[in-house]
Amino acid sequence: MIQTPYLLFLGDAPDPLAAKVAQGIRDWRPENAVGQYRMAGCKADLGLPDMDLAAAKAAGARTLVIGVANRGGVISAAWKKVLIAALEEGFDLASGLHNLLRDEEDLVAVAKATGRMLHDVRVPEVAYPIADGTPRAGKRLLAVGTDCSVGKMYTTLAIDAEMRRRGMASTFRATGQTGILITGDGVPLDAVVADFMAGSIEWLTPANAPDHWDVIEGQGSLFHVSYSGVTMALIHGGAPDALVLCHEPTRPHMRGLPDYPVPRLEDLRDLSLTLARVANPRCVATGVSVNTQHLSEQEALDYCAEVEARMGLPTVDPFRHGAARLIEPLAAL
Amino acid sequence: MIQTPYLLFLGDAPDPLAAKVAQGIRDWRPENAVGQYRMAGCKADLGLPDMDLAAAKAAGARTLVIGVANRGGVISAAWKKVLIAALEEGFDLASGLHNLLRDEEDLVAVAKATGRMLHDVRVPEVAYPIADGTPRAGKRLLAVGTDCSVGKMYTTLAIDAEMRRRGMASTFRATGQTGILITGDGVPLDAVVADFMAGSIEWLTPANAPDHWDVIEGQGSLFHVSYSGVTMALIHGGAPDALVLCHEPTRPHMRGLPDYPVPRLEDLRDLSLTLARVANPRCVATGVSVNTQHLSEQEALDYCAEVEARMGLPTVDPFRHGAARLIEPLAAL
Repeated sequence: MIQTPYLLFLGDAPDPLAAKVAQGIRDWRPENAVGQYRMAGCKADLGLPDMDLAAAKAAGARTLVIGVANRGGVISAAWKKVLIAALEEGFDLASGLHNLLRDEEDLVAVAKATGRMLHDVRVPEVAYPIADGTPRAGKRLLAVGTDCSVGKMYTTLAIDAEMRRRGMASTFRATGQTGILITGDGVPLDAVVADFMAGSIEWLTPANAPDHWDVIEGQGSLFHVSYSGVTMALIHGGAPDALVLCHEPTRPHMRGLPDYPVPRLEDLRDLSLTLARVANPRCVATGVSVNTQHLSEQEALDYCAEVEARMGLPTVDPFRHGAARLIEPLAAL
Repeated sequence: MIQTPYLLFLGDAPDPLAAKVAQGIRDWRPENAVGQYRMAGCKADLGLPDMDLAAAKAAGARTLVIGVANRGGVISAAWKKVLIAALEEGFDLASGLHNLLRDEEDLVAVAKATGRMLHDVRVPEVAYPIADGTPRAGKRLLAVGTDCSVGKMYTTLAIDAEMRRRGMASTFRATGQTGILITGDGVPLDAVVADFMAGSIEWLTPANAPDHWDVIEGQGSLFHVSYSGVTMALIHGGAPDALVLCHEPTRPHMRGLPDYPVPRLEDLRDLSLTLARVANPRCVATGVSVNTQHLSEQEALDYCAEVEARMGLPTVDPFRHGAARLIEPLAAL
């Protein structure tokens, strides 16, 4: 568990997109973001107060989160100077970079001397159990997609936020690096050893109050041959009561696999439900989340209306239309 | 890759079952087994020549394989003495034990000094790629089961042996510890990191001659919530042309999961084919392998006849009836 709140390190981001992890924290957990730290030449701006380490410390920040991608997979000397100073000022560090903080000898030495933590959220820090399939109290929702990168994280964050806005008991359960940095906790599922994948998701979504919802971030797709085993473990480890089907309608083929067609939403619904009901016979599909970023406003409305009529499920783009209609069916479960 | 042939270390096996890994090597790769090494009190006997280290060395053995389970997860002092002597005599060591050879400081020191290898087949030794889903020349067969431990390894070893007996081009592809020790090569899939599971199976079954068959050992079951992600990765990484359905008809529930019923063979066929055709649209189910160990001879014949009539697929127990009928449909593919 990463200590919150954060000072968000934007470094020398070459453009706003490079700081998308920091942007995600800013958007979804603004209470975790007390300020931003920008170096000379930084082209990203989250609209947060610019703070140096001392100001952030005084404002209560406990962890410096690297909210920006680095260039060439190397932690530069300029970054390193800030990171070491942050450890010395009493901050923990958290990172989702491919190259790990723990592989940097100087950071390890200073963290040890100062008693601070280095969190590499790409690496599991827990010895997960093997799944035992025991039913758990509480409700669970899982996002599944026709493909990778169709908006499963956004959809589940939006559902969780709308549930909490309505006073429902809900917890977003992160299963990837960005989600873990946003919430400070979760399972980096793609880095978990095969035998423990489903068990890690049982561990992430334990028994809870009967009316509490775990809103579980999806990963991969049953139809994406590179990552389908990860998706399978989410379905059986999460044992969801509700599935939200996620889709991007303009994609010409599966991401990174030019010879693989994107399946129909009906195929996703049928296959996901068949598999989910092995673990939870009561599982139902409750809605469709469409990523309409490549459609015009009218095209997006028309597409959602067409899917809704065809499938009989509330269909929205939560980014454009809000997540409210995806939540309405849940009260009946 | 483990150097063959082997001297099979049976240690102080308390009963024959404790030496089942050695028995598997003896049964399926007798050419890899030059002799057995038994300590005082050993209750297992493979019917191989008893050899000391010098005799096995003279007979050409290159690796001492620990073919026996140890008691309490500890490598005893009595075992250790033999293992160290074997390294000093020029043998590599190979083990599928939960506790690793590489965690024993004395073995590591002697192996380093003598230039010998320590193979822990539970631990991947390869940096596997992420699967790219590219079709590969050659044919592939995969065993899938209604449950774990229903005879998938036995079935695929028997199919591979019968294919080679007929002069067909065939390679058994091991995906678990015992299979890896039997053949000297393979992928310990349950220990592979999630993102690389399917890629490890693509790596294991590369492009080959058009008439060559990779006969892939199955793992887990799509219906076993603890391990279904592993099975999923085998189906999409292996991209099989043929599926053999494996079943044990007397099991009251899924292994280790008292509340989970065993699915019907029809459910296994339909779900496996739906998923397999994502990676290989030509995939078909070609046979059923029944583990009849808890049935009488007549019950076994009756059961297989009933399944065969119901499903229209050759149905045998390869242990009792041979694997020949499971191979006949493959020539047509």
